[in-house]
Amino acid sequence: MALIVQKFGGSSLESAERIRAVAERIVATKRAGNDVVVVCSAMGDTTDELLDLAHQVNPVPPARELDMLLTAGERISNSLVAMAIHSLGAEAQSFTGSQAGVITTERWGNARIVDVTPGRVRNALDEGKICIVAGFQGVNRETGSITTLGRGGSDTTAVALAAALDADVCEICSDVDGVYTADPRIVPDAQKLEKLSFEEMLELAASGSKILVLRSVEYARAFNVPLRVRSSYSNDPGTLIAGSMEEIPVEEAVLAGVATDKSEAKVAVIGVHDTPGEAAKLFRVLADAEINIDMVLQNISSVTDNTTDITFTCPREDASRAVELLTKLKEEAGWESVRFDDQIGKVSLVGAGMKSHPGVTAEFSEALRDENINIEMFTTSEIRITAVIREADVDVATRALHARFQLGGDEAATVYAGTGR
Amino acid sequence: MALIVQKFGGSSLESAERIRAVAERIVATKRAGNDVVVVCSAMGDTTDELLDLAHQVNPVPPARELDMLLTAGERISNSLVAMAIHSLGAEAQSFTGSQAGVITTERWGNARIVDVTPGRVRNALDEGKICIVAGFQGVNRETGSITTLGRGGSDTTAVALAAALDADVCEICSDVDGVYTADPRIVPDAQKLEKLSFEEMLELAASGSKILVLRSVEYARAFNVPLRVRSSYSNDPGTLIAGSMEEIPVEEAVLAGVATDKSEAKVAVIGVHDTPGEAAKLFRVLADAEINIDMVLQNISSVTDNTTDITFTCPREDASRAVELLTKLKEEAGWESVRFDDQIGKVSLVGAGMKSHPGVTAEFSEALRDENINIEMFTTSEIRITAVIREADVDVATRALHARFQLGGDEAATVYAGTGR
Repeated sequence: MALIVQKFGGSSLESAERIRAVAERIVATKRAGNDVVVVCSAMGDTTDELLDLAHQVNPVPPARELDMLLTAGERISNSLVAMAIHSLGAEAQSFTGSQAGVITTERWGNARIVDVTPGRVRNALDEGKICIVAGFQGVNRETGSITTLGRGGSDTTAVALAAALDADVCEICSDVDGVYTADPRIVPDAQKLEKLSFEEMLELAASGSKILVLRSVEYARAFNVPLRVRSSYSNDPGTLIAGSMEEIPVEEAVLAGVATDKSEAKVAVIGVHDTPGEAAKLFRVLADAEINIDMVLQNISSVTDNTTDITFTCPREDASRAVELLTKLKEEAGWESVRFDDQIGKVSLVGAGMKSHPGVTAEFSEALRDENINIEMFTTSEIRITAVIREADVDVATRALHARFQLGGDEAATVYAGTGR
Repeated sequence: MALIVQKFGGSSLESAERIRAVAERIVATKRAGNDVVVVCSAMGDTTDELLDLAHQVNPVPPARELDMLLTAGERISNSLVAMAIHSLGAEAQSFTGSQAGVITTERWGNARIVDVTPGRVRNALDEGKICIVAGFQGVNRETGSITTLGRGGSDTTAVALAAALDADVCEICSDVDGVYTADPRIVPDAQKLEKLSFEEMLELAASGSKILVLRSVEYARAFNVPLRVRSSYSNDPGTLIAGSMEEIPVEEAVLAGVATDKSEAKVAVIGVHDTPGEAAKLFRVLADAEINIDMVLQNISSVTDNTTDITFTCPREDASRAVELLTKLKEEAGWESVRFDDQIGKVSLVGAGMKSHPGVTAEFSEALRDENINIEMFTTSEIRITAVIREADVDVATRALHARFQLGGDEAATVYAGTGR
């Protein structure tokens, strides 16, 4: 008998009808002879509606109260799923994050899980019950405060519970039926991948893939919890994410796919004195403002005036704040200018096979050249190549790379939408 | 410095705008130099909407999960009220029933409070915070289960907290601005009462007044917590409910008012053998079916065949079930017939002054006779007289009694609507 953790996203639970469908799937998993723990997000747009209400009563709602408010959404979906399971003749019990032993830091709105003590869940499983645990929420042990885990929190709850219960697999069920070699909305012949290593999934998530949040994949990798990304509505096995890249025999290692990201902006600081401490000054200002830097590029110094240019990318919503902060610093630091560009896009090729295939970088560059696409920034890791290009070129570049590295299949892929939180 | 518990009903919280208005009132109470604990019902129709969803996924939702679902409503309203208070520059902290120490039995859907241990609320008060406690909900200490308190649960939470914190007063704030001598929709010159004893309020609640649920008044009386019924929107002091009837000097004791009730039906069992155990047989069947009996009337035996008739009233929604159960029993018991009538109404006169005024029953009967209204059943307590009449006659009877006992004032009363849970 296996122990399976199943996580369902908000759009899979947006109506009573969908909740009944999800319940049928859960009961089928149980009747196939498995122990089942379910983690549910809030129904459909509940979280956004609650946030909207909060902003109506207070434009800057206090974080502690916001967490109390938002956790109501998961209570509602979880108890409804438990009821729907009962109506199918199986036994289910719902648990709040606190009841399930999800212990967190007290950073409201973005708490980290510090421990999971699922004694009550384990007891209910031993009694033959299906356990339904509210995702996205936990409790701080010292103060008894209710907390939320931030973006992708329900995925993280599912993975953390799977780790604590030593589950055989953690299934992430949503509108998306697996991990593809590229976004099928951009590349019609994108293929669903059967299996990926944790490292490859981490690189894809970091490169713009929205299928799983980085944090839940990091957690799964740290505790070695196999993940399966699959559809809430079909029996397709989806994509398994398990094992280290190191375990893949070199001969079998292939390229996983092409990821795209249109959510970043580029900021360039021109005429930075090429002396120690100048870059540190720049990045300290941004770190203090909690702006996440993604890529960084520094050119070699100009021979004439010993200055350099520092270019970086960051989320678009933070870019104007970054420009404001750096412009303030410009005079004092003696920089020439601060430039800003939000019409950029990122395209990345990811795969363990890259290690054993020399010339991938050359082929990558040639594929873009053949489409007359200019590369503005370029970075690589052991299993990833990323180029920053014009946003308008991203789709063409993605199709070109996908074709060049023969990632496509014979059939058009099913088009999917975004996942829930 | 006084400690005031304020309870707000669902219609006072039905929109962001109303929540902000309630927050202003709470902050004003705090700034007047009081410690303030607030108990909120769920917003507007939230509870009904959640119930509707529950029935869509399961026609007979399990009680435990229903409680988990419904408690989300109070979490939402409470955290929003706390946020609104913050936006006015005061400090507030919201508590779930469990966090506030509301310990209950494990009877889901209708739990009883067994203890209130508000240590965390007390600490927050000591730090100068306004405490917002979710009404209607508690926790079972042994199992950690979340429970709800049934109808009027938020009023009961407020009274229980006031008792545990030794509050100076528990204010019940809603669309209703006080307790009136009669329903102002029926009697235009009904007067708002300044003060009532617990016993009088109990009799009014038991006689059909919807302003407070019986249970919360019983709790307030047992722990001697003064209650104030007042409007959420005005500064009118409303009606104070405090003190025992015994404390009212005889000379000052007056009549409190006329209560009406159109929610009951009458069931009559004809031809019951007048021997010991026959009535017991009848009422045992009803008790086992959890049907609450209100009034009971048994005529003297017929001299010819030694049989009697037993008539009782019960909630209309239970009446057809009662008739069905008794009809099944009829053959075996040898009764003549079971009759049913749901066109009845109750009109009651309540007041401590009744004790010291002989002839009240005579005047009551005469007032109805003068309107040509027939009395079908008649019962009295020390401070109450109740008549069952035709439902169609209830409004006329109420006006006649109100006038006969000079309960009216010079001005027309403000018309009010029902209260929240």
